[in-house]
Amino acid sequence: MNLETLREATRQQMPDKRWKHTLGVVDTAIKLAKRYGGDPDKAELAALLHDYSKAWAIDRMEAVIRQHDLPSELLVHDKELWHAHVGAWAVESEHGITDAEVLDAIRYHTSGRENMTKLDKIVCLADYIEPGRDFPGVNKLRELAKISLEEALISAFGSTIEVLVERGKRIFPLTVLARNDLILQFKLAQTNEQ
Amino acid sequence: MNLETLREATRQQMPDKRWKHTLGVVDTAIKLAKRYGGDPDKAELAALLHDYSKAWAIDRMEAVIRQHDLPSELLVHDKELWHAHVGAWAVESEHGITDAEVLDAIRYHTSGRENMTKLDKIVCLADYIEPGRDFPGVNKLRELAKISLEEALISAFGSTIEVLVERGKRIFPLTVLARNDLILQFKLAQTNEQ
Repeated sequence: MNLETLREATRQQMPDKRWKHTLGVVDTAIKLAKRYGGDPDKAELAALLHDYSKAWAIDRMEAVIRQHDLPSELLVHDKELWHAHVGAWAVESEHGITDAEVLDAIRYHTSGRENMTKLDKIVCLADYIEPGRDFPGVNKLRELAKISLEEALISAFGSTIEVLVERGKRIFPLTVLARNDLILQFKLAQTNEQ
Repeated sequence: MNLETLREATRQQMPDKRWKHTLGVVDTAIKLAKRYGGDPDKAELAALLHDYSKAWAIDRMEAVIRQHDLPSELLVHDKELWHAHVGAWAVESEHGITDAEVLDAIRYHTSGRENMTKLDKIVCLADYIEPGRDFPGVNKLRELAKISLEEALISAFGSTIEVLVERGKRIFPLTVLARNDLILQFKLAQTNEQ
């Protein structure tokens, strides 16, 4: 597997705007990995591939979920969540990516999950704060990202949950479990520091 | 089982302020039951008993949860949630209440749950909007309660979730599942009306 080939294949899956976002996530994920003792190479790979299937047609994503036994509960939740699982399947089947840690970071970059790995956290947070992102509170997240991966993600997931509540939309339970778990991890880390 | 005896036993479990709240929930639950075709007698009984164990000492509630195999996940969540499950246990074991629908309405009045019964909804909403309640948005909930049980509860759970996010506290997953399910129910009802 050649990184340059993968870059080109990934670029071809998406419009220019999404590719620019992807490059922003790659850059941010590498920086976060270096800041928090993660693996910059895995961070680069997972970030490069995180939105591999984001621009795919809904029908194509649905077909993958149904035909390849991806979690069926995805289908009753927002389509926004589909591309992460479908993307992990796609880069494994189309490009032979087998690193479970990288695949999980792609799979859970939108929802989060309980017991997020450091790589999960890095890719998920980089996706929220890459330089091209512009939403209320993004600068607060960028500041928190300099202090703590966990604190920044608790705040990021909190914002996502608040937006869904305001819009009267359903909340993906995994995001709540992820945030709950991060709050416990963060409290534990603070207790250990005292 | 005599209702007057139950009233007196319940009053003795709590300070006057909580008893006044209980009477408000009873009154509101009966009104909601009549408005939405529920059973006013069951609504009265479940509302009367909903906070039976609310003023119990934390140690006493924890002992009940541990000794009587109540869901252990309660122990890692906010103590605010304990009294509902402990109360359902208490009124069954101390007063021989065996109506599963009434016991469930007590058990899930704080968290909600998926597939809430009409009685669950009535008691849960009455607890949010009884006349003694005073919090930002309570009047909006009272107005919604005149239109739809589901719409009012979606908004009520949304407020609870937002408060927890703002305070950096964990969210009980069952409340998210309850709200998600009510959103689906509400959409389905709207589709059927069209």
